Amino acid sequence: MSINKKKGILISLEGPEGAGKTTILQEILPHLEKNGAQVLTTREPGGIRIAESIREIILAPENTAIDGKTELLLFAAARRQHLNEKVLPALAAGKVVVIDRFIDSSVAYQGYARGIGVAETMAINDFATDGLLPDLTLYLDVATEIGLARVMTGDREINRLDLEAAEMHRKVRAGYQKIAAENPDRVKTIDAGQSISEVAEAAMTAITAKFPEIF
Amino acid sequence: MSINKKKGILISLEGPEGAGKTTILQEILPHLEKNGAQVLTTREPGGIRIAESIREIILAPENTAIDGKTELLLFAAARRQHLNEKVLPALAAGKVVVIDRFIDSSVAYQGYARGIGVAETMAINDFATDGLLPDLTLYLDVATEIGLARVMTGDREINRLDLEAAEMHRKVRAGYQKIAAENPDRVKTIDAGQSISEVAEAAMTAITAKFPEIF
Ligand SMILES: Nc1ncnc2c1ncn2[C@@H]1O[C@H](COP(=O)(O)OP(=O)(O)OP(=O)(O)O)[C@@H](O)[C@H]1O
Ligand SMILES: Nc1ncnc2c1ncn2[C@@H]1O[C@H](COP(=O)(O)OP(=O)(O)OP(=O)(O)O)[C@@H](O)[C@H]1O
Ligand SMILES: [Mg+2]
Ligand SMILES: [Mg+2]
Repeated sequence: MSINKKKGILISLEGPEGAGKTTILQEILPHLEKNGAQVLTTREPGGIRIAESIREIILAPENTAIDGKTELLLFAAARRQHLNEKVLPALAAGKVVVIDRFIDSSVAYQGYARGIGVAETMAINDFATDGLLPDLTLYLDVATEIGLARVMTGDREINRLDLEAAEMHRKVRAGYQKIAAENPDRVKTIDAGQSISEVAEAAMTAITAKFPEIF
Repeated sequence: MSINKKKGILISLEGPEGAGKTTILQEILPHLEKNGAQVLTTREPGGIRIAESIREIILAPENTAIDGKTELLLFAAARRQHLNEKVLPALAAGKVVVIDRFIDSSVAYQGYARGIGVAETMAINDFATDGLLPDLTLYLDVATEIGLARVMTGDREINRLDLEAAEMHRKVRAGYQKIAAENPDRVKTIDAGQSISEVAEAAMTAITAKFPEIF
């Protein structure tokens, strides 16, 4: 099966760790469903068996020799399979699909932050998705300190790994900001430093502005 | 580790099933080693654990939903890992590496015969190999009927699958012939319809012509 045109709507949630993607998705779900839209929420590998197997290879602790490009190719393969088996059938059935991270995560993390290259990361992903892009991407923008504080638990001291994480987080954020600047029609930036209810409201405002006839 | 420049020599053997790649590799090996060259013979996934795991996903009979592009991405990931862990270290040590099938197999089978597209197949593979190409490729060219006859066992009647195989084989051969025509410096075509000793001799002639100072 190849990836074809679709009838439904694809919305992606993007942003660094702690931006609130998973939280906000749950918050907006009832609002999306209110007017009768059929909504599928998902995230890669989305329970797709082949994609799960690929993910296992990437995450296996003994696979330390795996390098950034191998990882990118494997993620792209898993992404394609998840699209083919889960996302596209839902779109073909006219559903609203909301996905927790999609192609921009690869571009921000691997293209920008890990330095594999934006054009190359996009090219591999375009191949994997046959150029499918979300109809709307909500980019949850949050200051590095705030995002990391949300995911750091307890009140332990900050260590070297946290500092590395902060550096990475900053690069990821800069990458997302470039993506948003370069794709103003598709990507809407939301100030995710606000309270959960404020972020959820801003997300719904962006969605209804884009699809006024549906939500 | 990223793929870097190398000191050794990389030779690939290409051609459809039954062309004699594996047979000829064994035939020429003693001649390659005669003058003291250190030779590594290999084929993907080459015993590299991550690459073997990827191959298992591709070949698992229950993974029928896997499509051509997913497969190509997985093969590219396995290729990169095999290069990184096995081929490049040998090249860096100045060895002669002879590989049974490499990038041209993807282009001939998936790019040409399966219709995924030559440019796209090359682009994914270039990404995976950082543009590394063999110093010399021996393309074993054989008529479809001869190649298939060599791999078909017994004297059973020809069935529908054999006919499909013949059609595929023909497309693969046409693909290889285009690759050879477009890369005359790198790819040497060898008439593999000859006897094993004649093919082996032609292979050695091509190798010594290319690297007169070594063999
Ligand atoms: N706007 C917010 N204000 C305060 N806390 C928040 C906000 N959004 C999320 N959180 C909290 O921050 C933590 C991380 O949120 P969440 O898991 O939704 O982030 P995420 O973007 O999905 O991160 P990851 O990329 O790691 O999956 C959770 O404990 C969540 O309750
Ligand atoms: N030149 C030749 N003349 C006659 N028989 C040959 C010749 N070359 C190979 N064979 C025989 O053909 C069969 C297939 O050869 P071989 O396995 O080397 O092909 P191959 O190109 O490696 O195929 P595959 O792509 O399936 O691995 C073997 O039985 C081998 O002995
Ligand atoms: Mg999350
Ligand atoms: Mg063989």
